[in-house]
Amino acid sequence: MNCQSPATTPLVGILGGMGPAATVDFYSKLIAATPTSGDQGHLRVMIWADPTVPDRSAAITGDGEDPTPKLAEGARKLDEAGASFYVVACNGAHAFLPSVREQVDLDYLSIIDVTAEHVGRLPYVKKAGIIATDATLSAGIYQKVLLSAGVEPLVPSSADQHRVMESIYAVKANELRTEHRRGLAEVSARLCESGADVVIAACTEIPLILSPRECPRPLVDPAVLLANAVVSEAAYRAE
Amino acid sequence: MNCQSPATTPLVGILGGMGPAATVDFYSKLIAATPTSGDQGHLRVMIWADPTVPDRSAAITGDGEDPTPKLAEGARKLDEAGASFYVVACNGAHAFLPSVREQVDLDYLSIIDVTAEHVGRLPYVKKAGIIATDATLSAGIYQKVLLSAGVEPLVPSSADQHRVMESIYAVKANELRTEHRRGLAEVSARLCESGADVVIAACTEIPLILSPRECPRPLVDPAVLLANAVVSEAAYRAE
Repeated sequence: MNCQSPATTPLVGILGGMGPAATVDFYSKLIAATPTSGDQGHLRVMIWADPTVPDRSAAITGDGEDPTPKLAEGARKLDEAGASFYVVACNGAHAFLPSVREQVDLDYLSIIDVTAEHVGRLPYVKKAGIIATDATLSAGIYQKVLLSAGVEPLVPSSADQHRVMESIYAVKANELRTEHRRGLAEVSARLCESGADVVIAACTEIPLILSPRECPRPLVDPAVLLANAVVSEAAYRAE
Repeated sequence: MNCQSPATTPLVGILGGMGPAATVDFYSKLIAATPTSGDQGHLRVMIWADPTVPDRSAAITGDGEDPTPKLAEGARKLDEAGASFYVVACNGAHAFLPSVREQVDLDYLSIIDVTAEHVGRLPYVKKAGIIATDATLSAGIYQKVLLSAGVEPLVPSSADQHRVMESIYAVKANELRTEHRRGLAEVSARLCESGADVVIAACTEIPLILSPRECPRPLVDPAVLLANAVVSEAAYRAE
């Protein structure tokens, strides 16, 4: 990034609001990932936070409304405002991005690809546990890229997946309780017992519930990886 | 806010990035202020976070570049994207808003007005201490509205103001240390010794440094007041 000529720094688009607290968390991580000593060295960012995007899990697993039109609207707003590229601060929404990209031609960095690339490079990782929404798991987006990276994906049992969803909806409702944290720690422990060498916090709400010290094996935070990737990409585009 | 017809909820514009961490804090407070039990009841928000807006204090107190063009660019982006109204998550930037408003005709809620109105209604408040940037104090924006509300404004001594600025720049540089927190607590104590019945955290970075328990008298957080005002305004516009 060229801190001497800030006017030339690329505009980073963030499609967020799914949910809002996860977007706050992602933006915090992006700020923390940016090497600078004052306001002016930080990235120019536009956040389109539309929490009214229909529930991704409901859309994939059954009878929910299709979130694609609102996601495409957001991507279009980012494009029209001059974003150089964009990211989506919601793993589950990535299941709908192929359709969005047919409608809006704007470069983007995928949180799924960035994560799979990172995990695939860790020499000790043969199997990776995935804690994610029903949307992300049903769409198979992580399973597919992990397999391509030579890593076997492990997902929670149906009962555990139910607890994962309860915890995620609790964050969205601002009603997170100790039992949700404990439940998610147990889900991560069971994934590790099943052979997971790492656990992927594959929903942007998960890092708000489960901390690395509560997980028996390394907890991979895709939001941190995406933040780092955004900083690198912006620096590359500013050159 | 009409949670049944989320498509009709107004788009709230936030002009931020001054600095980025303060914008994260403001958006967190907006989320916390929103009464809802899931993503879809939260406000549709667009955040234009341009940290390359020239330093507001340098511009007002001396030889710094004028931030008005970049502030106007941000306001225009919010307007073009369809914002119903906007707020600026930076107190000091409000000194430049009259010029911005001449260029961009979009409704806005002022953090200064919202705060003065609140403080003016507190029956026990005769004097209010102001902890703010050089920009905010030199422009006199809080002093003017507080006097109109019947409240006498108190500002730190020159030496204390220097410590305030050091603390604020430390937040912006992600280099906040215990001495900054202690220094700001002492500044707030001296304002109270001088007769302040409340202390206004009149820079969006201050709540990241000074907590209410470190201030001898009630610490007023304009960001929280603005968040509440945004929720009310959005509900009013959605009806």
